[in-house]
Amino acid sequence: MPATAPRPVTAPTAAASDVAMPAAGVRPTAFLGSFFHAPRYGEVELLERALIEVDARGVIAAVTLPDAPDYAARIASAREAGTLACLPDGTYGLPGFVDLHVHAPQWPQAGVALDEPLDVWLQKRTFPLEARFSDLEFARRVYRDLVRKLLSLGTTTTVYFASNDLASSIELSRIAAEAGQRALVGKVVMDDPAANPDYYRDASTAQALADTETLIREVASIATTTPQGAYAVVTPRFIPSCTDEGLAGLGRIAERHDAYVQSHCNEGQWEHDFVQARFGKSDAEALYDFGLLREKSIMAHCTFLTASDGELFARTGAAVAHCPISNSYFANSTCPVRRLRAQGVRMGLATDISGGFSPSLYDNIRHAVMVSRMLEDGVDARVPQDRRGAGEASRITSAEAFWLATAGGAEALRLPIGTFQVGRAFDAQVIDTRVPGADLTGFGVFDAPRDVLDRILFLSTPENVRQTWVQGRLAFERGSREA
Amino acid sequence: MPATAPRPVTAPTAAASDVAMPAAGVRPTAFLGSFFHAPRYGEVELLERALIEVDARGVIAAVTLPDAPDYAARIASAREAGTLACLPDGTYGLPGFVDLHVHAPQWPQAGVALDEPLDVWLQKRTFPLEARFSDLEFARRVYRDLVRKLLSLGTTTTVYFASNDLASSIELSRIAAEAGQRALVGKVVMDDPAANPDYYRDASTAQALADTETLIREVASIATTTPQGAYAVVTPRFIPSCTDEGLAGLGRIAERHDAYVQSHCNEGQWEHDFVQARFGKSDAEALYDFGLLREKSIMAHCTFLTASDGELFARTGAAVAHCPISNSYFANSTCPVRRLRAQGVRMGLATDISGGFSPSLYDNIRHAVMVSRMLEDGVDARVPQDRRGAGEASRITSAEAFWLATAGGAEALRLPIGTFQVGRAFDAQVIDTRVPGADLTGFGVFDAPRDVLDRILFLSTPENVRQTWVQGRLAFERGSREA
Repeated sequence: MPATAPRPVTAPTAAASDVAMPAAGVRPTAFLGSFFHAPRYGEVELLERALIEVDARGVIAAVTLPDAPDYAARIASAREAGTLACLPDGTYGLPGFVDLHVHAPQWPQAGVALDEPLDVWLQKRTFPLEARFSDLEFARRVYRDLVRKLLSLGTTTTVYFASNDLASSIELSRIAAEAGQRALVGKVVMDDPAANPDYYRDASTAQALADTETLIREVASIATTTPQGAYAVVTPRFIPSCTDEGLAGLGRIAERHDAYVQSHCNEGQWEHDFVQARFGKSDAEALYDFGLLREKSIMAHCTFLTASDGELFARTGAAVAHCPISNSYFANSTCPVRRLRAQGVRMGLATDISGGFSPSLYDNIRHAVMVSRMLEDGVDARVPQDRRGAGEASRITSAEAFWLATAGGAEALRLPIGTFQVGRAFDAQVIDTRVPGADLTGFGVFDAPRDVLDRILFLSTPENVRQTWVQGRLAFERGSREA
Repeated sequence: MPATAPRPVTAPTAAASDVAMPAAGVRPTAFLGSFFHAPRYGEVELLERALIEVDARGVIAAVTLPDAPDYAARIASAREAGTLACLPDGTYGLPGFVDLHVHAPQWPQAGVALDEPLDVWLQKRTFPLEARFSDLEFARRVYRDLVRKLLSLGTTTTVYFASNDLASSIELSRIAAEAGQRALVGKVVMDDPAANPDYYRDASTAQALADTETLIREVASIATTTPQGAYAVVTPRFIPSCTDEGLAGLGRIAERHDAYVQSHCNEGQWEHDFVQARFGKSDAEALYDFGLLREKSIMAHCTFLTASDGELFARTGAAVAHCPISNSYFANSTCPVRRLRAQGVRMGLATDISGGFSPSLYDNIRHAVMVSRMLEDGVDARVPQDRRGAGEASRITSAEAFWLATAGGAEALRLPIGTFQVGRAFDAQVIDTRVPGADLTGFGVFDAPRDVLDRILFLSTPENVRQTWVQGRLAFERGSREA
């Protein structure tokens, strides 16, 4: 007998559902609704009709489920205080996404010219574009748009490469802070005159290091008035664009300030071969030797990590920013998520705008799942099945990809975000599954919690992201302005 | 000097632009605007400020460009007659997409349970779900929603697998006809009692063949009152679910009625091996021997086609429905588009709902490009580069993927659709690049025609699809009902 036959059919409802908010101007400190999160790798938890209470700092103070003795009393108390927000049936809270790798000045290039080889793409398009960000007015326009776009897609924390220009890099930190997004921002160091265009590089190694120290100081100052935090990131573009002195100097700065570090590691065959030729060692080893592979290091791509590179990551606590869409363009391979996770490597997900065309981590969750299966199964049917793929279990589930985009990113950054647990910031996106024309209810046929979450992960469009909260504050609401 | 430096910055505009339409109730017969299409494989053409005139049957009668001597007079004449529709600046017409492979009754399963193995996915989820479509009321609700959804994503022509149930399969043809979509619909034959669940299969081979003939008759009757056409498709699910008698009988029916045929061919390793074991030949050869590989045959997947299978496709004129997203889940490989195209095989693009989770051909265009690069480059970085990928140029450009979704689908179906050329049906989607929150103008930095099209192909969301036209009739308009 068909398992689904007896269940009544529920039609998509006719109208989108509004989150019931406190009076205008009152910030809610209690959220009643159903929340998905992934506190453990590969496992999804639905907190059904949970009450999440948030303190004045925007940190989760209590998560109360319906079977708790004080559940009704707590709800009543919040309602009486006028601080309760209610997510209606058909809406779900998800942790805000953590995007570990975004080139902010490449936002105008997203989706463009990806048929071109990487060097053409960089020299003809990217570097001239990035050079324009010394124009602060242009930078502001693009950065404001990007930050708002990411918030509208549920991304609450972003690790940004800004440009080589210091002033607009500081401005990006300020813009994100004001928009309510948690941003980690780096001014990009490209200090080797032989490796970079004259119109777009650091004036000198000394200047690059001094600018990096200035960035750290300025962003620390922005952070003092930013509830969700603001962080500077030491940012050598990648080994091929930096001198040995520059790389070593950045390593020392990172250590002195206990700062975040970001770069590209093993983005593709070319970078892998280049670093081998220059140093006779792997990209990971070279970064390590320069003091750049450490706790709070975020390395994009990492598709060529060997077993011993993986151990180095695990041992130092450095994290991988997995950029699955970008990998399909520029990596000549795909990042072996399961293998690196099995080694204990910290890892999150990233869009890599604009090596990856999509600003959405939803798209990258979907692609992470797909490429992991392609890694396992292989691609060329003319090769016998036992030699076609990676020869080991490589596929990840949607639950694993969801973890990467949330708790994994949090673990990579060592920040208390990414899940709905006490002590973590309340960073959330509210997904409405009943938007007319963007309905995610699936006619009620398959509605186990994992089915509901899978429809959200695989089918949601920007229209389904109704609100985005960062550190307990509403940072985006999809309303009449967007319609 | 950066090539882009001197260009002025254009900000995203504040409001979406409306298509200027004739008076209510008047059907426009002249469309003034900018249109992208791909009349030749791999080449994109922008018809800038073109006037496209459409006759009473919805067929393009003239395409007039601004340099034509009668351009102004033709516009003035249409304006005077009150039959002119104007696409404002920032909107672009694209050919309606052709989706060559959709399992309509699996729409409620889209995005769900894709972590499960194919047999579990089919036996526990898909077959029980498809069996519900003998309930006409349920079928109508799902099918109406799906047809409208596809139109809202710019898909004007769809080749559907309905279910094993005859009445609701005919109903799908009627629903699409009424909604203004061009639909090719098959009642799915699964006549082997040993290979299919008792609750979901044909009562007998004879009944399966009789039902197929009834479908052809009923759909021909629907077609008589359907301007955009309606077509029946002879539809063996795939070889493993059918008896030899069933397959041969369907081949005879296809020949007798010169009917469309659809099935799965080489979906993955299992099917490939199964057919080899049963017949000692390839899936393509077996389908051919049953009379099922012919002009107007659409075969989904085809990832395991050998060179000689490819020749068989090219010789018979059968077409491949490339389902790139679905491939990444179930094909254990990816369809070698360039190799098959080089053999002269007809080919279009398909979503394969719900083996592919997305109803959008935009998502499949993006994925087709990415997997073609992964086929060329390979996936496992531990394999030396010269043995990692397919060992031949496999990557396709966005222009090639765009062709597959439009003119390629048209060629596969041998229907006069898919481009804006005289004699073809006016099937179009109007893309608004200036929707607030879904802006595709890219700050005016890169705005060559290919850049504009690439942003549409890679970054557009459902919100950017403003209108969908089929055979000169407005079949979908995104308006207040959707907002």
